[in-house]
Amino acid sequence: MLFAVRMDVDIPRDLDPEVREDLVAREKAYCRELQKSGEWVHIWRCVGQYANISVFDVADNEALHQILWNLPLFPYLTLDVTALARHPSDLAPTSSRKT
Amino acid sequence: MLFAVRMDVDIPRDLDPEVREDLVAREKAYCRELQKSGEWVHIWRCVGQYANISVFDVADNEALHQILWNLPLFPYLTLDVTALARHPSDLAPTSSRKT
Amino acid sequence: MLFAVRMDVDIPRDLDPEVREDLVAREKAYCRELQKSGEWVHIWRCVGQYANISVFDVADNEALHQILWNLPLFPYLTLDVTALARHPSDLAPTSSRKT
Amino acid sequence: MLFAVRMDVDIPRDLDPEVREDLVAREKAYCRELQKSGEWVHIWRCVGQYANISVFDVADNEALHQILWNLPLFPYLTLDVTALARHPSDLAPTSSRKT
Amino acid sequence: MLFAVRMDVDIPRDLDPEVREDLVAREKAYCRELQKSGEWVHIWRCVGQYANISVFDVADNEALHQILWNLPLFPYLTLDVTALARHPSDLAPTSSRKT
Amino acid sequence: MLFAVRMDVDIPRDLDPEVREDLVAREKAYCRELQKSGEWVHIWRCVGQYANISVFDVADNEALHQILWNLPLFPYLTLDVTALARHPSDLAPTSSRKT
Amino acid sequence: MLFAVRMDVDIPRDLDPEVREDLVAREKAYCRELQKSGEWVHIWRCVGQYANISVFDVADNEALHQILWNLPLFPYLTLDVTALARHPSDLAPTSSRKT
Amino acid sequence: MLFAVRMDVDIPRDLDPEVREDLVAREKAYCRELQKSGEWVHIWRCVGQYANISVFDVADNEALHQILWNLPLFPYLTLDVTALARHPSDLAPTSSRKT
Amino acid sequence: MLFAVRMDVDIPRDLDPEVREDLVAREKAYCRELQKSGEWVHIWRCVGQYANISVFDVADNEALHQILWNLPLFPYLTLDVTALARHPSDLAPTSSRKT
Amino acid sequence: MLFAVRMDVDIPRDLDPEVREDLVAREKAYCRELQKSGEWVHIWRCVGQYANISVFDVADNEALHQILWNLPLFPYLTLDVTALARHPSDLAPTSSRKT
Repeated sequence: MLFAVRMDVDIPRDLDPEVREDLVAREKAYCRELQKSGEWVHIWRCVGQYANISVFDVADNEALHQILWNLPLFPYLTLDVTALARHPSDLAPTSSRKT
Repeated sequence: MLFAVRMDVDIPRDLDPEVREDLVAREKAYCRELQKSGEWVHIWRCVGQYANISVFDVADNEALHQILWNLPLFPYLTLDVTALARHPSDLAPTSSRKT
Repeated sequence: MLFAVRMDVDIPRDLDPEVREDLVAREKAYCRELQKSGEWVHIWRCVGQYANISVFDVADNEALHQILWNLPLFPYLTLDVTALARHPSDLAPTSSRKT
Repeated sequence: MLFAVRMDVDIPRDLDPEVREDLVAREKAYCRELQKSGEWVHIWRCVGQYANISVFDVADNEALHQILWNLPLFPYLTLDVTALARHPSDLAPTSSRKT
Repeated sequence: MLFAVRMDVDIPRDLDPEVREDLVAREKAYCRELQKSGEWVHIWRCVGQYANISVFDVADNEALHQILWNLPLFPYLTLDVTALARHPSDLAPTSSRKT
Repeated sequence: MLFAVRMDVDIPRDLDPEVREDLVAREKAYCRELQKSGEWVHIWRCVGQYANISVFDVADNEALHQILWNLPLFPYLTLDVTALARHPSDLAPTSSRKT
Repeated sequence: MLFAVRMDVDIPRDLDPEVREDLVAREKAYCRELQKSGEWVHIWRCVGQYANISVFDVADNEALHQILWNLPLFPYLTLDVTALARHPSDLAPTSSRKT
Repeated sequence: MLFAVRMDVDIPRDLDPEVREDLVAREKAYCRELQKSGEWVHIWRCVGQYANISVFDVADNEALHQILWNLPLFPYLTLDVTALARHPSDLAPTSSRKT
Repeated sequence: MLFAVRMDVDIPRDLDPEVREDLVAREKAYCRELQKSGEWVHIWRCVGQYANISVFDVADNEALHQILWNLPLFPYLTLDVTALARHPSDLAPTSSRKT
Repeated sequence: MLFAVRMDVDIPRDLDPEVREDLVAREKAYCRELQKSGEWVHIWRCVGQYANISVFDVADNEALHQILWNLPLFPYLTLDVTALARHPSDLAPTSSRKT
């Protein structure tokens, strides 16, 4: 089941630089782990923004919420979630591995 | 070079039904042709909306504009275009075939 | 899996009155059928608005999209969809029969 | 008498962690007490958001205001209140125990 | 129980003038009847707008919805409803006759 | 001459508690004094909000500005001012004592 | 007593050209008459817009509403009204002839 | 050449009171100096707001920018600039001394 | 003196095709004539939109307004005007030929 | 390939003045260097705003993102990016040196 999520990042300027570096590193590791598990299907940088557009492939709403809620940068993110369905013009065999 | 595009469709209620049917069929054919050529990389239906989120992989801005401007449904679409770049956390080898 | 959906209705003034009456009747029947099947869990009128707030319990995104897309009044609706998850403070045994 | 309320939580980052923990614990206890008394009828987490959609069943506006004003997290909440009425398509015997 | 309601009127230009005149007359009669019954407590014109700000004193949400839904001009109104409670600084004995 | 004013209060969290208490007490006294003088005609709490909707009856714009500018909480208020006129459907003899 | 009013004009395309011409002529005459009477103090065209920013000097809210409501183009205007007061930095002896 | 400018003031609460007093005094002096030179043609207080609507009469865009950029309160202002032209209904001989 | 103008075009669907064609042709001719005269300095298509971003170099506000008001497509345009000044980092000798 | 970018600057008031001065100087140098390389084609100050409208001419999205991300003031900027294409009415031989 697919969801598009736009994430805008706003890390407070006065966050301790080490804490910040650690957070960003953990976010990257967390993101890559979920790419390997097949749940974080796409991630693109929005040009000129500290933001990304991502696509997730998850078992259900609960699974998506757990993933997003546990993002290391979650307290500094504005998230916009769009539930996706198969488009009738899509040629790909199935857009989600999980249904 | 990748772009995310959200398309919201609003076909006027009083459009001749045959014209409408023809337009929608041509839109579908056009979309599939561009999927085959590798320029319309993804298309997903937004749940509960006559709308889609798409990803295009094109040579440049000019190419994207030609594709969008020539959509059979173009006069009835609201388009929102976001230029994309490679995200540093992305594990995929390269996100675009065209650079 | 639960979703909250707000539906704002805007039926064109010049719609044939019989067509309108028929549409509204079919909408009502469709809604009640989905209440009986357990997919349309709640529907409340928003005071002073031709609008409702509903809760759906569905198998997945695809199922929700099919339900909404097939609403007889769909062409005249503005829909706002919010994916829901279980709240940690909720005392109810499980908020959805479908997971 | 029913009301839908969306609550978005924004606890300041520099709040003392113990104060924060205490606040969140008291919010949870308060919420559960009102569920038991039958006034806080539903609470759902919005996926990917520190937010919930709730439904309250109260005697009148005054009662709802007292409940919301006394939420332990009230100073950190953005609240959006929608008065609800019975929907003509609703099959449930009566949507509110209090009228 | 009190509610503030702002009503913005937008009667379609091509409505038959007699129908329009009749609607406006019926709206006025309806409004005055509810003033006499004590449910439509205040009505003020917003300067420079075809709009009013009104205050209603009703038994419950259901009663308010019935009043608004049956406004002769309802199809041409945009309504914004705010539930009101007693303000702690208010000197008046009780702001609503109905609690 | 009547004006509707909505006031949203946002007192900074780090304001000294005694200063805050004093401000709120002075606001209440100021509000009651103007009710007695007949200039602050109505004040209602917006349910679930640290906000009120008020109606003022003043000699002119200048008088209203002086009243609002001197609110003890003025630096922490967002104010929305709507000039009011008599509504043709209003049954009350005159809505303002000052014209 | 002064008010700033922004007026955005949107005359329907299908209005009879003679009716339109007559409306615009009457609007101009009405505007000039009120300039002569000293109530319509300023009128400026907003560059690149079918819109103006005006300043009115009137006895009270009621007078302003009558002026605006009777604008020949009123049904095709979007009006935004701001009540004005004397600015403490203003060097002019008095900003309004009517207080 | 005329411009309308709305200025909303938001001086940070923690600014040193002497600095603040000095800034406000310099702003007032600066404003009056430009009134005398004929460039700051009008300034009105918006009722109930720490804001003003002003009209400037300047040689060109560059001159307006220099005036605004050098406002002592500039760092604490939100400015909204509208270029003005002569309105065809205006009876005044010429609305700007500088063209 | 420079101005940036964004123009969004929305030609009504039911405009006579010949009228439409003629309008678009006249718009093109008008635009090119003003490019030759040096007043319409730049025009770029916004990708995926029936819209352009343009830069004008004009003698004053009045000149810009005359240019925009006389655009053949003016009744079908939404215009957003931004006055420009020289940027201190700009290396170009002078950004405008007209000052 | 051309892009229009609007940049709104908001440097925190409590930034160390030397750090601020250094940042602004480096921003200026960076901007001029990119003007010389031909990538930062235009930069204009928006009148009355700490903001600019710029046009970039870059090889692709990736190049634009690198330029913007590395702006010394990037953490304090709000950026709005619009992809541009050649306009059919444009008389200039080619609007971009890079395609």
